[in-house]
Amino acid sequence: MILALTPNPALDLTYEVDSIAAFAEHRVRRVHAAPGGKGVNVARVLAQLGRRALCAGPLGGATGEEIRDLLVAADGVWQAWTPISGSSRRTVTVVAPDGATGFHEPGPALSSAECSQLKEDLRARLSSDAAPQSSDTGPQSSDTCPQPSDDARRIVAVTLSGSLPPGLDGDQLAGLVQACREHERPVLVDTSGPALLDAARAGADVLKPNLGEALAATGEDTPLAAARALLGLGAGTVVCSLGADGMLGVHRAPAGDAAWQAAPAEAISGNPTGAGDSVVAVLAARLLVDADPLPDVLRHAVAVSASAVTCPVAGQIDPGLAAQLLPTVSIEEIPCP
Amino acid sequence: MILALTPNPALDLTYEVDSIAAFAEHRVRRVHAAPGGKGVNVARVLAQLGRRALCAGPLGGATGEEIRDLLVAADGVWQAWTPISGSSRRTVTVVAPDGATGFHEPGPALSSAECSQLKEDLRARLSSDAAPQSSDTGPQSSDTCPQPSDDARRIVAVTLSGSLPPGLDGDQLAGLVQACREHERPVLVDTSGPALLDAARAGADVLKPNLGEALAATGEDTPLAAARALLGLGAGTVVCSLGADGMLGVHRAPAGDAAWQAAPAEAISGNPTGAGDSVVAVLAARLLVDADPLPDVLRHAVAVSASAVTCPVAGQIDPGLAAQLLPTVSIEEIPCP
Repeated sequence: MILALTPNPALDLTYEVDSIAAFAEHRVRRVHAAPGGKGVNVARVLAQLGRRALCAGPLGGATGEEIRDLLVAADGVWQAWTPISGSSRRTVTVVAPDGATGFHEPGPALSSAECSQLKEDLRARLSSDAAPQSSDTGPQSSDTCPQPSDDARRIVAVTLSGSLPPGLDGDQLAGLVQACREHERPVLVDTSGPALLDAARAGADVLKPNLGEALAATGEDTPLAAARALLGLGAGTVVCSLGADGMLGVHRAPAGDAAWQAAPAEAISGNPTGAGDSVVAVLAARLLVDADPLPDVLRHAVAVSASAVTCPVAGQIDPGLAAQLLPTVSIEEIPCP
Repeated sequence: MILALTPNPALDLTYEVDSIAAFAEHRVRRVHAAPGGKGVNVARVLAQLGRRALCAGPLGGATGEEIRDLLVAADGVWQAWTPISGSSRRTVTVVAPDGATGFHEPGPALSSAECSQLKEDLRARLSSDAAPQSSDTGPQSSDTCPQPSDDARRIVAVTLSGSLPPGLDGDQLAGLVQACREHERPVLVDTSGPALLDAARAGADVLKPNLGEALAATGEDTPLAAARALLGLGAGTVVCSLGADGMLGVHRAPAGDAAWQAAPAEAISGNPTGAGDSVVAVLAARLLVDADPLPDVLRHAVAVSASAVTCPVAGQIDPGLAAQLLPTVSIEEIPCP
C-alpha cells in the first residue's frame, strides 16, 4: 500500500456558469463536487494504476466529512486521516465557456499538537507493518470484496503532495520526511517554495517540482541546474515537469549525476490540472516501489500524464491511451558536465 | 413563536480577496461562513427583535448539516427542518476592495414526496398548538436556559421567504399559504415572479415584494398600481420596498384600498443585502402578530431596515440605531383613487 499524504486536502467545487464578470451576480447552472488536494489526486491515480493507496493527512469539520464521503465511492482508495479541530478547505472553480476562474480557501491552521499528531500517526502507520488498522475507511466496494490481507496493508512508500496549511511549515514537512527515512520507507515530495529545499535537505528520495517551482526555489536558470542544486542539498532523484516538453529526471549515480529528458511525440491539449499528480503516482509506483530504471519510469510518467490531460477531472487518467502513447515517448540522456 | 419557512436555505460563504479578475486564480485571504437564505435571515432578525423564531424548510446533505450547526449558535433561533435527500445549496460572495461578485448554487431539486412532506410538517406544526416538539433543535443557550413553555411554542404566524428550489413551484407555495389559512394563522410571503401572483391568489395576508419584483410580476408601471393589482388577486396587505425611498404599504379597508408611504429622513449607505428580510421580520412581528396599525408598522420597518443597512452581515440589525431613527421616519397617506 502506498500512503499518499495530503497536508491540505480540499473539497473541489466546480461551478458551471453561462458567462463570468467581476462585480456581477451569477446563477450557477451545475455544481460538481470532488475530493481534492494533490495527495488525494495521487491516491486516485494510484488506484487506477492498480496500486492500493491510503489517503492520509489532517481532515476536519463539515467539509472534511464531505471529502471523506466522496472518497468512499472512489474504488481502491483507503482513508486514514488525522482529525483536526478546524474545517478542511474548499476550492471553487467557476467554469464559463471561455475559461475558468479559481478561488482557493487557505485551509485550516494546524495547532502544534495537531502537527505532532500527524507525524505520530505517520510513524504508527509505518511501524505497524502488517497489523490491520480497524479504523481505516475502505472504498465502498470493500463491503462485498475481500479485505486486503495484512501484507497488502503494509506501507511500502510515501508521497507528500501539495501546499502546506498554515501552522505546518517546511521544518515539519522535513520531520515527516525524516520519519519515513527512519522507518526505511522511500518518500517522494511534491511541493514548492522554501519547503522544497527543506524536503531536499531532509533527504527525500524523490522531489517532483514543476519548472517554475524548481527555478523559483533554487534561484537557478535552467531545469538541469535547479535539479542538480536539489540533489546537492540531499535529494536522491529530482523529476522536473516541463509542461508540453515532457520531463527531466536527474539522479545521483556512482559516477556522478545522470539525467534524462522524456518528451511526448506531440503536445496533447486538454486540462493540465492534476497531470502533475499523475506523474507523482507513476513515480511512486514505478520508482519508489518497483525500483525500475529512471529512463523507463520517465517514459511511463510522460504517457500517463498525457492521458491525464485528456481527462476533464483532476485525479483521472486514461490507462488505454497511456499504453498507446508509451512507445511514442522519446527519451534522451542529457550530459551532466 | 413565529415560523420562518425558507424554501431554499443556503450556506453563505464570503471570500475576502485582494482583487478579482475573470480567468485568474485567487488566493482567498479569509473565509466567513453563515447560515443563509431569506427565511433564515428573517428568523435571526426576529430573535434580535426579542421574538422567538423557528426556522423550517427543506434541509439536506453535508451543507445542510453545516447550516444547522451554524444556526445552533444563533441566540433565540429554533430549528425544525424537513429532511431531504439532496444537499442544501451554497452561495459564494467574493469581496474585493472594489466590490463583490456572487455565485449562487441552484439548490437541490425537491421530489414531490419531499414537497408533500414539507406541507405535512407545516400542518403538523400548526395543529400541534401547545404540544412540545421533542425533535426541535434549540439555540445553544437553551442548555442552560429554561425551555420555552408550551404556550411559547405555539406558532402564531408564518413567513415564507425567498426563491423556490427546483421541484417546488408556485402551486405548492400556494398550498403552503392555504395550509396556514386553514389553521387560521396569518402568513406573509416574500417571493418574486409568477409565485408572487400565486401567493396573492392563495390569499396571503401580507406580500412583501421589492419594487422591481412587484412591477415585473404584475406588469404594472407604478408601485401603487402593482400593490393594488396584488390586493385585487386576493392579498390582504402589500408592502413594497422602494430602496432609499422607504416603502409603500397598501391594504384593503372597508371604504376601499388605503395606502401609506414611509421614508427615512436621509439615505443610509452600507450593505443592503438582508435589509428586505429585516422588513419581513418587522411585518411578521408587528403586523401579523401584534396587529398594529399599518402606518406605525411601516415606520418601524423603515427604521429597522435602515439599521440593517449599516450592519456588514445579512440577518443583523442595530436595535439602538433603529430606535434613534424611528422618530425621524416620515409617513404620508397616499390617495387611492
